[in-house]
Amino acid sequence: MTASFENLRRLSGLLAPSGEAASTGGRPPARFAFNPQARVAVGVDLGATHGNVALTDLHGRVLSEAAERVDITAGPVVVLDRVAATIGRLLDAAGRGAGDLAGIGIGVPGPVEHSSGRPRRPPIMPGWDGFDVPGHVRRHWDVPVLVDNDVNIMALGEHVTAHPGLDHLLFVKVATGIGAGIISGRRLLRGAVGAAGDLGHVAAPHAPDVLCACGNTGCLEAVAGGRAIIRQLTAAGVPAATNSDIVALVHGGNLVVAQALRQAGRTIGEVVATCVSLLNPELVVIGGSLAGAGESLVAGVREVVYGRSLPLATGHLQIVTATSGFQAGVIGAATMVVQHTLAAERVDRELANSG
Amino acid sequence: MTASFENLRRLSGLLAPSGEAASTGGRPPARFAFNPQARVAVGVDLGATHGNVALTDLHGRVLSEAAERVDITAGPVVVLDRVAATIGRLLDAAGRGAGDLAGIGIGVPGPVEHSSGRPRRPPIMPGWDGFDVPGHVRRHWDVPVLVDNDVNIMALGEHVTAHPGLDHLLFVKVATGIGAGIISGRRLLRGAVGAAGDLGHVAAPHAPDVLCACGNTGCLEAVAGGRAIIRQLTAAGVPAATNSDIVALVHGGNLVVAQALRQAGRTIGEVVATCVSLLNPELVVIGGSLAGAGESLVAGVREVVYGRSLPLATGHLQIVTATSGFQAGVIGAATMVVQHTLAAERVDRELANSG
Ligand SMILES: [Zn+2]
Ligand SMILES: [Zn+2]
Repeated sequence: MTASFENLRRLSGLLAPSGEAASTGGRPPARFAFNPQARVAVGVDLGATHGNVALTDLHGRVLSEAAERVDITAGPVVVLDRVAATIGRLLDAAGRGAGDLAGIGIGVPGPVEHSSGRPRRPPIMPGWDGFDVPGHVRRHWDVPVLVDNDVNIMALGEHVTAHPGLDHLLFVKVATGIGAGIISGRRLLRGAVGAAGDLGHVAAPHAPDVLCACGNTGCLEAVAGGRAIIRQLTAAGVPAATNSDIVALVHGGNLVVAQALRQAGRTIGEVVATCVSLLNPELVVIGGSLAGAGESLVAGVREVVYGRSLPLATGHLQIVTATSGFQAGVIGAATMVVQHTLAAERVDRELANSG
Repeated sequence: MTASFENLRRLSGLLAPSGEAASTGGRPPARFAFNPQARVAVGVDLGATHGNVALTDLHGRVLSEAAERVDITAGPVVVLDRVAATIGRLLDAAGRGAGDLAGIGIGVPGPVEHSSGRPRRPPIMPGWDGFDVPGHVRRHWDVPVLVDNDVNIMALGEHVTAHPGLDHLLFVKVATGIGAGIISGRRLLRGAVGAAGDLGHVAAPHAPDVLCACGNTGCLEAVAGGRAIIRQLTAAGVPAATNSDIVALVHGGNLVVAQALRQAGRTIGEVVATCVSLLNPELVVIGGSLAGAGESLVAGVREVVYGRSLPLATGHLQIVTATSGFQAGVIGAATMVVQHTLAAERVDRELANSG
């Protein structure tokens, strides 16, 4: 479940490989000086109704965690003050003080302008648009605060916990929203303003022209997201109100629901096929609350991707369901802190060595 | 037209930033020891009917060049022997010997397994599939030989010559084939086996179910590539046999051709919109032989991308036509050598410093 220190180091892509460590000229290579027990990181995974918080060491190993129900629509001040208090309780329980805290990583449900840590997309999260999340959290805890969208932290967490040996991974979250997190060359690809992976409103090939909340028609989310599936099931006389209902129905053997999920998988597969052609990953991981519904969804994705993509891109491509589940979000958020800390410590060391 | 040394250094992403150079501990920072005039690089751009070869310094500045007509279907031995002879003539004319040659970069029309330098995709280039291009070229010139597909080297060349200040760029080649080269974080994104950017056979949303040579229907290339446009024009009574004919007709004011290009641009724009949502680049560059047709094609791309993509991804996005033209391919191919050389020299220096 937890990643090895070496994998976290490799994942960070920021520390010196051994050939480079040799350049410090006779001093002991810095890699042996690093003590992951010395400090702790906090990972926070915020969803529409949950706030998961974990305390980890700098291996990314979870020391303790708290799962709380939060209402993201209560606004950032209420939610972040609550998270800040939870962090204090976890530190107390672990016998750690504020001085041990290397940083706080936070995942939020929606796009984030990565350079400022400010969320963007008002309709889904009233009050959060443009809010200075790092600035507010630092009023409670004066440490580096790194913010990214929930899909990116799930991609990081899934990479570090389940597939640390891979260089190129595409994580696709399928829930009410649909989005992707891209690991390319062992790094998260965020793009110019942190909007990379925002697949919810791309045109799904061969999909009906359903009107989307964004004003366009045929958006992937409007055709294959949780709300679209619930609408189809309701029309077919199968009562379902939430993504959990969908998962429970399919686990109960409901074939109508299994077929709806398979068809959603095919539609998502059309877009994933384009992503696979563009990015040439080694692995596609299907995650998010609807991935918990088992094989129907991922089977639909596989059917289309293997049928559409060319042999060079799909010859060794695997398409799997996410395995790390609950912990992927908080571990991914903590991983941002670990990577940041390793990079900062490296700069410190090199400045010291140059004196 | 040519990039500054500093831009090439930054593009390479492989040399130490100044904070890192300080870690050599009192020795003069290595960046000043590098003399770009000391050695030369060769860039080769192979197409279906052309073989362009350029000799550059390690700034990426073209010292001399040769444009030859070659028939790629003559097979790799004939074509590469010819290229090897051309390299000899360019070196002679520049008063340089084999010892000055830092390496040879080669772009070929089709996918390349980047780790081995072996092309993949037999139907388009008989004899080239799996051929050991680096091994054969090294029989003539025993230097590092780096091979990539033509779209990637055009993306590198366009980045270094026209947009060296940007971090995230998507280059889309529109010709008989359609493909993309991705610059992400100043590096070329190649994916797991070098197949990244292979957009020719992705499903174009809202496109007719035209049968493609690959066996699928509705592939982007089959709907909006040069052959598809020629077929439409012929059906409309406008005689055109080559991409050059298309460009000449639109420059001559033919509105039927301009409309066909605009529609092709819209179809390509549907796929580019998905790429923009996935990658969040700062700039999309439309290149390739049909980009020479002026505004019709790029106007169609803009129409769909700005209409489809969300504000966060397209707020600062520009979509432009490639400017570097003929030289982008050879300069991009030479840039692979420059980057390789800078990285190798860095390792050498650090090994020396560690002694
Ligand atoms: Zn939409
Ligand atoms: Zn095709």
